[in-house]
Amino acid sequence: MTVLPPFGFRFVGLHAGVKRSRPDLGLVLCERPATVAGVFTTNVVQAPPVVLTREVAGRGRAQALAVVSGNANAATGPSGWEDTRAIQEVVGEAAGVRPEEVAVACTGVIGVPLPMERVRNGLRRGVAALVQGDGSGQGAALGPAAFAEAIRTTDTFAKIASREVALSTGKARILGVAKGSGMIHPQMATMLAFAFTDAAVAAPALRAAWRPICERTFNQVTVDGDTSTNDMALVFASGAAGGPTLGEDAPEVDLATFSDALSALAAELAAMIARDGEGATRLLRVVVTGAESDEKARAVARVVAGSALVKAAVHGADPNWGRVLAAAGRAGVPFDPASVSLWLGPHRVLAAGCPVAFDEGAAKEALAQDEVDIRLSLGSGPGEGVAWGCDLSAEYVRINADYRS
Amino acid sequence: MTVLPPFGFRFVGLHAGVKRSRPDLGLVLCERPATVAGVFTTNVVQAPPVVLTREVAGRGRAQALAVVSGNANAATGPSGWEDTRAIQEVVGEAAGVRPEEVAVACTGVIGVPLPMERVRNGLRRGVAALVQGDGSGQGAALGPAAFAEAIRTTDTFAKIASREVALSTGKARILGVAKGSGMIHPQMATMLAFAFTDAAVAAPALRAAWRPICERTFNQVTVDGDTSTNDMALVFASGAAGGPTLGEDAPEVDLATFSDALSALAAELAAMIARDGEGATRLLRVVVTGAESDEKARAVARVVAGSALVKAAVHGADPNWGRVLAAAGRAGVPFDPASVSLWLGPHRVLAAGCPVAFDEGAAKEALAQDEVDIRLSLGSGPGEGVAWGCDLSAEYVRINADYRS
Repeated sequence: MTVLPPFGFRFVGLHAGVKRSRPDLGLVLCERPATVAGVFTTNVVQAPPVVLTREVAGRGRAQALAVVSGNANAATGPSGWEDTRAIQEVVGEAAGVRPEEVAVACTGVIGVPLPMERVRNGLRRGVAALVQGDGSGQGAALGPAAFAEAIRTTDTFAKIASREVALSTGKARILGVAKGSGMIHPQMATMLAFAFTDAAVAAPALRAAWRPICERTFNQVTVDGDTSTNDMALVFASGAAGGPTLGEDAPEVDLATFSDALSALAAELAAMIARDGEGATRLLRVVVTGAESDEKARAVARVVAGSALVKAAVHGADPNWGRVLAAAGRAGVPFDPASVSLWLGPHRVLAAGCPVAFDEGAAKEALAQDEVDIRLSLGSGPGEGVAWGCDLSAEYVRINADYRS
Repeated sequence: MTVLPPFGFRFVGLHAGVKRSRPDLGLVLCERPATVAGVFTTNVVQAPPVVLTREVAGRGRAQALAVVSGNANAATGPSGWEDTRAIQEVVGEAAGVRPEEVAVACTGVIGVPLPMERVRNGLRRGVAALVQGDGSGQGAALGPAAFAEAIRTTDTFAKIASREVALSTGKARILGVAKGSGMIHPQMATMLAFAFTDAAVAAPALRAAWRPICERTFNQVTVDGDTSTNDMALVFASGAAGGPTLGEDAPEVDLATFSDALSALAAELAAMIARDGEGATRLLRVVVTGAESDEKARAVARVVAGSALVKAAVHGADPNWGRVLAAAGRAGVPFDPASVSLWLGPHRVLAAGCPVAFDEGAAKEALAQDEVDIRLSLGSGPGEGVAWGCDLSAEYVRINADYRS
């Protein structure tokens, strides 16, 4: 996979000492303040980095991003707030940027204070490596891949993707990095996703594009239905590609072209996160058509992809289509069961509410693929939506139950 | 356990041939029409027995109940409706009761037509056994225990409980029978609960009592978050105990006394269902206090008890209280995280939003009990609620994934 780094950003990853030995601190510096937009967890319990970074995104400008992995800095009482502000201040001072333009994300164990001496030291080493353009003296590795590696908790692979997009005034690049819900260590459940582009995008336009993209992609990923105290998805636009600013003086068509590319990138990262769900052996993609609206289609797709019974059936490659129908029926979206059709892979098993004879062996085979498609047509409108999930395996339970016992 | 059967009802269970060899048909006849109230699944996809029995309950009178186990008669197209009406007619004709006063419940596989010849034959044999007061000639067993046995699918034990309640005008009895979500055979996910009392209760009073009782009990049970196409909870009151009618000419205090007993019975059955969740090794009871309202407390308790991460932690006896807090935070109920306190068994781990040092070994031990209590105080009001669940084990996945593979 060729990664196309966008201009205007520098990336580094290193081991600060939050985790025992693996990289646990990622830093991104922008040459000039970038525009930024964010979408954050809706959980009532929000970690201080979520609250403070929402403020950064609300102002629309950021020049740095610091990500700590291995500790969520959530439910840590008043010190959690001080520690998050300290991260902003240390990066600000070391890198010569404003503390209020430093975005912070943390992911990992809940209820344990950050080891701040190690974090401060790591932040200073990371900034030094970025400034020197050489990490060797600081035990740090430069580049997007090192950053992607450093924000992992127990993801089994680093999640990184990129796009080049041809705007009417020249090319721009978009880089995406994410981490999913790997929770071998207890209480880790955080999805973080970051996109970086060298296109120039006005903050209001970036914000207007990012939220619906997140709703169609990251918010349609379900691993186990538990949302975290730390989830966030941020997009940064440096403008270093040159050219006019999208949402201001650039041709209108370019904003649409850019949004489409950003959306495709986000969908690619979303599928990566689902595929790497804890204990997962298959990627589950649920496509719902014929809903009254896209929003309702997405809601049904999400509930089906999140159903423990559907996930267990997919794990066993068992064509239990009744579970899909029952899950769809509890999504809070009204539809007429007599109009519903249902496919497992290419095999139709329900047509307009009536069971259809199907080849069970072939259906089992369709469910035993590395990527499994389930499609539901509700027959009540033009709305469409996709959700990504994974199968439920005994390994999921082992990972989440037995780690410390 | 001594079961106190209420007067005015006769119970039978037998093998009709829906399942290979175990009892699969339960029948209850009332000497005279009983008053009846029901609560039904909110799933958009509802089996014909749910729809037709809701009509029976809506009219408030029933004289018979027929329960088929092993087949849900859901998503079976037009024949599913005809078959359900045929059950009402066959029972009506054989027992000399009105078809529209026959309640019907089915539980089992989705999308497969009922084997109606066997069902008809079984219904006639069951009624004959009840009329003769002797099941031996019909291969049927009389009594509540036989009925409870016949409505099981893969429950590992029959669920039956009873209460005697002292009203000011004499004693009345309440019998409860339920089945939970045992789903070894794919696509079974039905909770059925029935209560029978010989108290005389006016239909409106019975209905007014039953819904809030179900909301506090059966609707607070979660095994895997999947609601079924066939769930129902019915209460029948025969009046055969004699005495004035509750909700009409009986002293008002008696209706409250009766409702309390019915509520305690329902809670006992609810806990039985949770304890017998698929693959469960522990009963999980989540108590939430200090919410703005009882309803909000129940919502938080339900989400915590249903969280895959909490359930897996309970399975591993891992004191991961962060998972409890994160689950509470996504229940859609606003609260101030800085006011929350949290107990695992008797051990407080969070006090007013701040982590508390606790003995991890002792907390592990509390979570390794047969019954595990988790308590959350939200600190924002007088609302209280309980939810019952179970741990998530690898056995759950095995049961639901690997049965046919």
